[in-house]
Amino acid sequence: MSRKILWINPIGTTHYDGPLQEWLDASKEPETDVKVISLPRGPHHLEYYYYDALILVDVLHAVRRAEQDGFDAAIIGCFYDPGLREAREISERMAVTALEEASLLTAAALGRLFSIVVGRKKFIPKMEENVVRYGLHDRLASFESLEMGVEDFQRNKKKTARRIKIAGEKAIREHLAEVLILGCGFQFGFYLELQKELGIPVIDPVIAALKQTELLANLRQKFGWGHSKVYEYESPRREEIAHWRLADQYEGI
Amino acid sequence: MSRKILWINPIGTTHYDGPLQEWLDASKEPETDVKVISLPRGPHHLEYYYYDALILVDVLHAVRRAEQDGFDAAIIGCFYDPGLREAREISERMAVTALEEASLLTAAALGRLFSIVVGRKKFIPKMEENVVRYGLHDRLASFESLEMGVEDFQRNKKKTARRIKIAGEKAIREHLAEVLILGCGFQFGFYLELQKELGIPVIDPVIAALKQTELLANLRQKFGWGHSKVYEYESPRREEIAHWRLADQYEGI
Amino acid sequence: MSRKILWINPIGTTHYDGPLQEWLDASKEPETDVKVISLPRGPHHLEYYYYDALILVDVLHAVRRAEQDGFDAAIIGCFYDPGLREAREISERMAVTALEEASLLTAAALGRLFSIVVGRKKFIPKMEENVVRYGLHDRLASFESLEMGVEDFQRNKKKTARRIKIAGEKAIREHLAEVLILGCGFQFGFYLELQKELGIPVIDPVIAALKQTELLANLRQKFGWGHSKVYEYESPRREEIAHWRLADQYEGI
Amino acid sequence: MSRKILWINPIGTTHYDGPLQEWLDASKEPETDVKVISLPRGPHHLEYYYYDALILVDVLHAVRRAEQDGFDAAIIGCFYDPGLREAREISERMAVTALEEASLLTAAALGRLFSIVVGRKKFIPKMEENVVRYGLHDRLASFESLEMGVEDFQRNKKKTARRIKIAGEKAIREHLAEVLILGCGFQFGFYLELQKELGIPVIDPVIAALKQTELLANLRQKFGWGHSKVYEYESPRREEIAHWRLADQYEGI
Amino acid sequence: MSRKILWINPIGTTHYDGPLQEWLDASKEPETDVKVISLPRGPHHLEYYYYDALILVDVLHAVRRAEQDGFDAAIIGCFYDPGLREAREISERMAVTALEEASLLTAAALGRLFSIVVGRKKFIPKMEENVVRYGLHDRLASFESLEMGVEDFQRNKKKTARRIKIAGEKAIREHLAEVLILGCGFQFGFYLELQKELGIPVIDPVIAALKQTELLANLRQKFGWGHSKVYEYESPRREEIAHWRLADQYEGI
Amino acid sequence: MSRKILWINPIGTTHYDGPLQEWLDASKEPETDVKVISLPRGPHHLEYYYYDALILVDVLHAVRRAEQDGFDAAIIGCFYDPGLREAREISERMAVTALEEASLLTAAALGRLFSIVVGRKKFIPKMEENVVRYGLHDRLASFESLEMGVEDFQRNKKKTARRIKIAGEKAIREHLAEVLILGCGFQFGFYLELQKELGIPVIDPVIAALKQTELLANLRQKFGWGHSKVYEYESPRREEIAHWRLADQYEGI
Repeated sequence: MSRKILWINPIGTTHYDGPLQEWLDASKEPETDVKVISLPRGPHHLEYYYYDALILVDVLHAVRRAEQDGFDAAIIGCFYDPGLREAREISERMAVTALEEASLLTAAALGRLFSIVVGRKKFIPKMEENVVRYGLHDRLASFESLEMGVEDFQRNKKKTARRIKIAGEKAIREHLAEVLILGCGFQFGFYLELQKELGIPVIDPVIAALKQTELLANLRQKFGWGHSKVYEYESPRREEIAHWRLADQYEGI
Repeated sequence: MSRKILWINPIGTTHYDGPLQEWLDASKEPETDVKVISLPRGPHHLEYYYYDALILVDVLHAVRRAEQDGFDAAIIGCFYDPGLREAREISERMAVTALEEASLLTAAALGRLFSIVVGRKKFIPKMEENVVRYGLHDRLASFESLEMGVEDFQRNKKKTARRIKIAGEKAIREHLAEVLILGCGFQFGFYLELQKELGIPVIDPVIAALKQTELLANLRQKFGWGHSKVYEYESPRREEIAHWRLADQYEGI
Repeated sequence: MSRKILWINPIGTTHYDGPLQEWLDASKEPETDVKVISLPRGPHHLEYYYYDALILVDVLHAVRRAEQDGFDAAIIGCFYDPGLREAREISERMAVTALEEASLLTAAALGRLFSIVVGRKKFIPKMEENVVRYGLHDRLASFESLEMGVEDFQRNKKKTARRIKIAGEKAIREHLAEVLILGCGFQFGFYLELQKELGIPVIDPVIAALKQTELLANLRQKFGWGHSKVYEYESPRREEIAHWRLADQYEGI
Repeated sequence: MSRKILWINPIGTTHYDGPLQEWLDASKEPETDVKVISLPRGPHHLEYYYYDALILVDVLHAVRRAEQDGFDAAIIGCFYDPGLREAREISERMAVTALEEASLLTAAALGRLFSIVVGRKKFIPKMEENVVRYGLHDRLASFESLEMGVEDFQRNKKKTARRIKIAGEKAIREHLAEVLILGCGFQFGFYLELQKELGIPVIDPVIAALKQTELLANLRQKFGWGHSKVYEYESPRREEIAHWRLADQYEGI
Repeated sequence: MSRKILWINPIGTTHYDGPLQEWLDASKEPETDVKVISLPRGPHHLEYYYYDALILVDVLHAVRRAEQDGFDAAIIGCFYDPGLREAREISERMAVTALEEASLLTAAALGRLFSIVVGRKKFIPKMEENVVRYGLHDRLASFESLEMGVEDFQRNKKKTARRIKIAGEKAIREHLAEVLILGCGFQFGFYLELQKELGIPVIDPVIAALKQTELLANLRQKFGWGHSKVYEYESPRREEIAHWRLADQYEGI
Repeated sequence: MSRKILWINPIGTTHYDGPLQEWLDASKEPETDVKVISLPRGPHHLEYYYYDALILVDVLHAVRRAEQDGFDAAIIGCFYDPGLREAREISERMAVTALEEASLLTAAALGRLFSIVVGRKKFIPKMEENVVRYGLHDRLASFESLEMGVEDFQRNKKKTARRIKIAGEKAIREHLAEVLILGCGFQFGFYLELQKELGIPVIDPVIAALKQTELLANLRQKFGWGHSKVYEYESPRREEIAHWRLADQYEGI
C-alpha cells in the first residue's frame, strides 16, 4: 500500500531541504513517497522558545493543508517536537509525528536506558519535558551537551563526530546508556560511523521519525488506528472556527 | 513602590475586559496600576490547543511591547498558561505570570492537597501537564469537571456556582482536597460564596495571579530577583532576530 | 526486503496455532513471512507465574533455534512478555518482541493515556510491573478486569465483546483513557467492532506485535539498529556455556 | 492595610536577634511591622533533630501567644521549617511560614531548577524530605554542602561568600541550576553580591520568608484565604485540651 | 541471647499499659523481656500534630534513659512513629522502632500492595508522609478510614471489628490490597479473627513492632548492625549539649 | 519454637555449599536448623538472564519438595532473587525469601539511603528493577561496580575487600549512603572488617536473608502471617496441573 508523507522543516530557510530529501529518499520504503518542505518565513533554527512560537501556526497550517492535499502523514522535522500535539488535534485522519517522540519510541525497544546528545544545555529543559510528557523519563540515562549550535553540526562534520563520540562514551560509561539518540534533526548522517565506534545503536532522529511515520500511516490504513480523538487530540469544531472568522484573521488557514 | 501591570486577555474579544478590569481594580494593592487588554484578533476561548497556538505570537508581542512601554509585569490571563515560558524567555526584566502557576503556588502554602475545577475533561491533559511541569503533581488531589464550556461560566451564574459546589464537596470527601482551585479565568467572582459553603479556601485564579504578580514585581524591584536568564529562560540574541529579518516577516514584533 | 518472523505461542497446545496463523497472515506485510509454532509441552495458558516459569527455557531455545535457522525476528506470543529480555540477551542479531511491550509502544503514539483490559485481577501485578519496567507507567489510565479466564475469550465471543465494551466505556469515562489495549493474545479478533463502538483506537496485541516486529526487523536490516548488546542484553559467552556442558544438562540447547 | 508579623528565632540565644531585626526592617513593606524574638531556652543552632525536638513546643506556644496578641502572621526562622505544620494546625486564623517552604515557592516562579546551599551534609536528609513534602522534588537540581557549621556563616563572611560562590558555580554548570537558594537563615546578607557574580537569582531565605508572609497575611485579610482547616491543619478541640489539663502539665500553654 | 525492650506508650495515661503488657508478653520470644511504660504527662491520644509535639521530648528522654539503663531496644508505641528518627539520632547503640515503619517492613515481604486502616481521614496526611519517607509509597494500595476516634477502638470491639472488615473487603476488591495493616496501636487484638474472615494477612502493628525490634536488637548484638550514625542519625555532640546547659533548661535530660 | 530452613544455592556446583553451610551455622539462631543444597545441574553463576532462566524450574521444584518435606522456609541464595515471586506463588504455607529483598528490608531500618556493591555493571539492570519492584527505589543511593566477576570474590579476598572499601567510601562521600549492601551471595564474609573501616553498617546478604527468613518463619508459626495468597501469590490449581499432565512433561515436579 503506498503512502505520501510530508516532511516539514519548521524553519524559514530551504538550506537543508536538499540534503534532507536525499537522506529521506535513501531511507524510505519503496512504497513511500516523501516530500520535504520548509516554511516561507521564520528563523533558521529553533534553539529558543520564541522561535518555536513564531513557526507554530505556519506548521499547523502546513499540516492542515497536507491533510487536504491527500497526504497520509506529516513529520514535524525538529527534535523539540514543536506543534506535535496541536497538529494531532487539528488533523482529522492523518498521522503526525516528530523527531523526539519517534526517537524515544524507537530506542525504547532497543535497550533499557538511552542518552540524548544535544547541542547546548539550553535545549535540555524542553527536551526533558518532552521525555516526561511521553512518559519515558525512567528510561533516560542522561543528556550530553556538545556545546555547539544547531547550525554547526553539518559545517564541521569531523568536529561534530568527534564530540558526539566523546559524549557517547561518557553516557555509556558513567550513565549506563545502552542506546544513544542524536537529539537534533541536523545531526543526520552521523549515526552509522558512530554506532560502529561506540558499539551500541545510535539513533538518527530523521530516520527514526520516517520509520515511525511509515508504521503509523500503515496502522491507520490497515487497522484504523489513528490518533485518538478523545480528550487530548479532540478537534475543534469547524463551525466555531468559521463563526469567529479565524480564516480572515490569520494567514494560511 | 508603585508598579504597572498589564493583564493580557489572550482572546480576540473585548467582552470580558470590562468585568475583569473591575475585578482586578477591586483586588489590587493601592500602589498597583493594572490595565486589561485583549487581542485584536483570535478565538473567543482557548479550549483547544489550536486556539492556544493561534494567539501565542500575539501574546508574546504584547508582552514585549509592554516591556518596552515600561510595564513592570504582565499576566497572561488564561489557566492554560499559554506562552508563559516563551514570554519569560523573550522578556528581559519584566515579571510574567499566568493563572495556573500562580494558583498552584498560592494553594501550596494553604493546604496539603488541592483539587482543580475545570469546564470539560478535554482541558485536563494540558492542565495536568502544567502541574507536572511546575513540579507539584504530588499535591494534586483531583481534577473535577463541570462539563460546561468556558463561555457558560458567567452566563448562568447560579448553575455554575451549584456545580462547583458539588464538585468541591466531592473533591474534599473522596480525594482529601484541602484547597479548591477554580481552573479558569472566567470562573472569577465565585470564590467567596463557595469558600463559605465548603469551609476550605477557594482560589480565584484571577486574584491569585494578580497577587503573585505584585509579589514578583516587588521582588524584582527591591531584591533583583527576576526570572533566571540561564538555560530555560535565556533570551534569544537580538542580532540573530535582526539578521533573519523576523520583524519583517511577522506582525507585531 | 523480505523478512521471516517466528511467532512462538508459549504454551503446550496447538489449539490456537491455526486461528493465529490466519490472523497473522491477514495482517502482515506482503514481504513478511510469519510462521506460528507452539511448544511441545507445557500448560495451556500462563495465568500463573509457575506456568510462565515452566515454559521459559523452551521459549528461549525456540528463539535460539530460530536465529540459527535464519529467522529475522521472533515474537513471544503472550501479553506477560515471558522471556522477552532473556531472549534479547541470548540472541545475537535477531529482533525479539512480545505483546505487552509492542502494544504499549503502539498506543503511546496514538493517545495520552491507555487502559489495559485483562482477564482477571491476578494478571495485573505482573502486567503493571511490565508497564513500570517499560517506563510508561505515567501513561497508564487503568487496568480493567473482565473476570474471565484466558481460555474463555474465544469460547463465547459475544459475552467477551460485551464485557470488553463495558470495561472500555468505564476506562474512557472514569479514567480518561484515550486508547484501549486488549491485554491478552487470545483477545485477538475483537478490536475492529469495539473501536467502532467505543470511538477510540482499540489495540489488538497480536497485530501490534506483528507490526512492531516488522519495524524492528526492518530497522535492523537497513540501519543496523538491533537490541543493544551492552549491559541489559549483553550475551553470555559461548565458551562458558560449553565449559559447563549446559547443552548436556538441559534439553533443547 | 497594616500587618504585624512575629519572627521567631527558634533558638535559645539572642545573639542574632539584632542583625535579623535590622535585615528584616530593611526588607519589609512600609505597612508591615515585624518583631524578632528568640526563645528563653534552647540550643544555639538546630543542626540535629534532637535540638529541633527541644525547641518545638516553645515555638508552638510562641505562635499561639502571637495569635492571642493580635499578630497577623508568624515566621519560624529556620530552614528546617521546624514546627511549621504543627503551628498551622494549632493556630486558627494566623498565617505561619518558615524559611524552606517560602524559599522554594519563591524560587519556583523564577527558574526551572534550583539548588540549595547547606552547611553540612547532615542537614540534607531533613531538608530533602521537606522538598518532597512540599511536592517540589522534581525542581531540585542539587544540594551543595559548604562543610561549615551554621554558626560559622557570619563569623568569617569572606570565606562563607567564597565557598557559596564555588558551590553555586558547580550547581549551575553540573546540575543545571537556574536559581540558588541559601539554605540557612544565618546565610542572610550574602545574596546580593553573589547574584551579581553568579548571574542567577540567589534567594536569601530571610527575605523570601518575609515576603511570602506579607503575601499570605494580605491574602487572609482581603480574601479570606488562610491555611485550610480540613485534614492536615484541622485544629485540636479546646475542650479536649482543657479536659486533659495540658496547660497544667506543660509550660507556656 | 536475652534482650530487654522498652515499650513507650507515648501518651499521658496508664489506661492501656496493662492490656498492652499482656498482649506483648503473649507475643514475645522467650528470651525477650519487654516492659511497658507511658508518660507522666500528656494527651491521651495523638490524633493532632500538636499532641505529637507535646510528647516528643518526653519520649526522647525516655529513650535516652532506657539506653542508660541497659535496654537493648525501645519501641515508640504509636502508628504516627513520633520521634522515631530523633530517637535514633540521640541513642548511640540501642535499636529504636515504631509501629508504622515496622508494620510496613513486615507487610512488604508478605504481599505486593498493602492498605492501611485508619481511624479518621485526619490521620492520613502524616501517615502517608511516613510511607513516602520510608520509600514504600508504590506499595500502598489505599488508606481506609473507619471514621472512629482512636479511643473508640477498644470500647466497642464488635463495631470496630465490623468496620475494619468492611474496610478490608473494599481494600481488597477495589484497590487490590494483598495485606491489611491496622493503622493504630489501639487496634491491637483484632487481627486474628479478621485475617480468617478476609483471607489475607492482617498486620497487628503492636506485634509487628515487637518482632521487628527483636530482630534489630538481635542484629545489633550478633552482627553489629545498628542504626547508621552517618548523616541522618548522626548524634549531637555531648560537649555542645553540656556547653549550652540544656540539661538545666529542659526536664528529663 | 524450632524451624527448618532450606538454603538453595541456585547453581550447578557444590563448590560453595561447604563454606556457606559454615557461615550460616555460625549465624543462625539456636532453634534454627539450616541445610544448604545446590542444584544437580546448571551454570556456576547467574550473571546472565539466560542462566537465571535455566535454573528457574529446578529452584521452584526444590522449593516445592522442601514444602512437602516439612521445611518451614526456603532461601533462594542469589542477589538477583531468581524465582522469588514464582516460589511464593507455588508454595502454600512456607516462607520464601531471597538475598536482595531481605538485604533491602534490613537496610531500610538502619539508615536513610543505601548503596549496593555489585560485581559488574551488567548486574545493575535486574537488581535495580528489583529495587523498583520492592518499592524502595527512593532509598537507593547508588550502585557501585567492582568490575569483578562473581567467581572472583572469594578467590582473592584481599583484592575484593580493598575494592569494596573504595566503593563504599565513594558511596558515602558522593551519594550520601548510610548503609552499604554487599550485592552478591559470594561476597559473604567481608562485612565485619569493612564496617569497622567504613563506620557504617555493611550488610552481608547471606546473614540478612537468614535472619529475615527466621523472622518470617516465626511470624507464620505464631501469628499466621504468611505470603498473601490473593492476586500476586495466588497458587495455581492442582487439578489444572494434573489435567495438563505437567508432571509427566517436566522433571522434578
